[in-house]
Amino acid sequence: MSAHETAVALAGLLRVCEPPSAALSAFTQKVGPVAAWEGVLARRAPRAVLAATSARTAHVPPAELIARAERDLAVAGGCGARIIGADDAEWPAAALHGFAGALARGVRGAGPPFALYLRGRALTGLPVNGVTIVGSRASSAYGQRVTGEMAYELAASGLVVVSGAAFGIDTAAHRAALQAARTGLTGSRPSSAPVTVAVLACGIDRAYPEANRVLLDEIGGCGSVVSEYPPGTTPARHRFLVRNRLIAALGAGTVVVEAGRRSGTLSTAAAAEQLGRVVMAIPGPVTSAMSVGCHLLLADRFAQLVTGAGDVLAAVGLAATGATTSDGASSPGVDPAHPTDGLDPVTARVYDALPAVEMTSVEEMVVESGLPPNEVIGSLALLELHGMTVKEGASWRRVTRTGKR
Amino acid sequence: MSAHETAVALAGLLRVCEPPSAALSAFTQKVGPVAAWEGVLARRAPRAVLAATSARTAHVPPAELIARAERDLAVAGGCGARIIGADDAEWPAAALHGFAGALARGVRGAGPPFALYLRGRALTGLPVNGVTIVGSRASSAYGQRVTGEMAYELAASGLVVVSGAAFGIDTAAHRAALQAARTGLTGSRPSSAPVTVAVLACGIDRAYPEANRVLLDEIGGCGSVVSEYPPGTTPARHRFLVRNRLIAALGAGTVVVEAGRRSGTLSTAAAAEQLGRVVMAIPGPVTSAMSVGCHLLLADRFAQLVTGAGDVLAAVGLAATGATTSDGASSPGVDPAHPTDGLDPVTARVYDALPAVEMTSVEEMVVESGLPPNEVIGSLALLELHGMTVKEGASWRRVTRTGKR
Repeated sequence: MSAHETAVALAGLLRVCEPPSAALSAFTQKVGPVAAWEGVLARRAPRAVLAATSARTAHVPPAELIARAERDLAVAGGCGARIIGADDAEWPAAALHGFAGALARGVRGAGPPFALYLRGRALTGLPVNGVTIVGSRASSAYGQRVTGEMAYELAASGLVVVSGAAFGIDTAAHRAALQAARTGLTGSRPSSAPVTVAVLACGIDRAYPEANRVLLDEIGGCGSVVSEYPPGTTPARHRFLVRNRLIAALGAGTVVVEAGRRSGTLSTAAAAEQLGRVVMAIPGPVTSAMSVGCHLLLADRFAQLVTGAGDVLAAVGLAATGATTSDGASSPGVDPAHPTDGLDPVTARVYDALPAVEMTSVEEMVVESGLPPNEVIGSLALLELHGMTVKEGASWRRVTRTGKR
Repeated sequence: MSAHETAVALAGLLRVCEPPSAALSAFTQKVGPVAAWEGVLARRAPRAVLAATSARTAHVPPAELIARAERDLAVAGGCGARIIGADDAEWPAAALHGFAGALARGVRGAGPPFALYLRGRALTGLPVNGVTIVGSRASSAYGQRVTGEMAYELAASGLVVVSGAAFGIDTAAHRAALQAARTGLTGSRPSSAPVTVAVLACGIDRAYPEANRVLLDEIGGCGSVVSEYPPGTTPARHRFLVRNRLIAALGAGTVVVEAGRRSGTLSTAAAAEQLGRVVMAIPGPVTSAMSVGCHLLLADRFAQLVTGAGDVLAAVGLAATGATTSDGASSPGVDPAHPTDGLDPVTARVYDALPAVEMTSVEEMVVESGLPPNEVIGSLALLELHGMTVKEGASWRRVTRTGKR
């Protein structure tokens, strides 16, 4: 069979079945897409497959279904997209492997995709080098900022930023990844890999939200745009939920940056957990409604708390390769030293008991610190060695190193 | 022996030993304070007790040590304080019981106090009805606000707010508890119980920080001020650490509101954990240095995430009794309903597939939803029963209830 035959079969199967359908996925995998398509057209397929496809095949002649599949491929091709299936080198086989385990555990709606429309770069390498970043459409300035810094650093470290092209957190994540690519920071990412992946809940020919059309075109250039739906499909709420399982699958972990109490974003976190991915959440002000969902995930210990790219890399078990440093507040950077750092507790206690300005005697120090004289004298000598005390006659005083008390 | 004899003995023992001293606590508990004091003065006591007291007794005649103890009691009395020991009804026996377990597990520095200077109300009822709230002195406006709301609600619910009278979070916690008392909100707290407890790292006659003198006077009125140190003792860093174990002990749980990476507040959290108390932390913006310590506690799962008074009451196993509601963002309040709440997934999918304005046929709905006709028809009928669809002839459209899609 030709590549075109396979493509028509995949397009046809996507057209007649609202995903996810574990039955059609299994059937397609078992007999191959061309035979599966012929089986559906001839109504010779497992009962569950026919049930999943009958709504869209019952009243349409096979010839017209085939013609529609051909038209879908043409529309997709017209906007630079192709269709891929499990036999394609571009297929994210490793990323979708997790669905088998979830299905085995009886997770509802865990049906894997059997075909995807793809615009831009191949999806190889995922999920190992991918991090999913999701969050509210109604994100706050705080969420936008944290998302931008994190996605930029992850992309600059060589990671692929996966999201859903929605307003708010998704847009901030895609934009920051594109910015890192524009700056030439790619870390260890192969030049053929996408810098960011957008998974749509509508047809590959659609831009949703419409205002993100330019963003999606740019992602189609140095990244990848993906859809499980036939061209022309409009977004609907259940499609966002179904799409979210793919967003979760394509990353080694999912970071929820901001989410309201009932945010659809939480379904992505749930899918990530079911697929065995690392679930992470960014905390925020408890006074922000946009952080309530994140705090619920953290309070239930459903998600690991992360504060930025460094934490994410550590949580998914990846080391940064040329990552820029995260901001001072949250990075595990160098802290200002305390003068008694590295001192044993007794010596630190003696140092604390020393007056900063006046002179004091060993006897006064004994009373003030409550330590025996020999320990006080020994500690004072040690502190003098460190340049932290000055002795004048029989009296001592502290030498302040940092100005802090 | 008279109450005065006991008081002098307790004051004397506090004067000659820098706490904590597990040895002196055990000795005092075993033989009683008067005999312990006589033993220390006569240098007839276990070796560890003599080691803990010799620095301050070796060069001072017993008569002078006794006179000092009398003076300490007089100074304490002059500022409205008394000394209490394990035999007093005011002694927080249940709160300090946890030290025995910590000592048994070999926790360093876990020596319980054997005497306390107390100004204000008795410490009975703690730790069961106490919540410890601590945080950075250099708190942010965010931390102040969250602390104030939480402490106010906890105090209004009948809880005793325990803290350390430092600037920042501590001050905000005490102030809010006093405000609740002033407003007459006391929940189930007995009228004899303190509304808030301040544990000092200096003598009971001192105000540290000095700017909090008025606050401490007010706490001494309807709350309790506590110190393990003889009058006149100046605060020193090691005393804050030692004091922190008492702050942790007096509450059923400890909430860290804000803490820098190396904040002394983290030692209170560690003490709470060692004493078997619930450790809680408030998240904040990852861009705030004052939340780094909290996020470390949460990321390590050392602390339970809480967002306000309601979460705290749940975490320590207490129900609110007449608590005011917390702010909308963090309270588990009523959310705006989604039109498809309570619908089964198939019916919700049909509802989502219905156009909001135009009319649509069952056949079109079958194609759009990918569901069999019987399921579509059944769902449309169900939606009509709910007043969520309108049928005109053979066509249907959605009835919008909330204006949301």
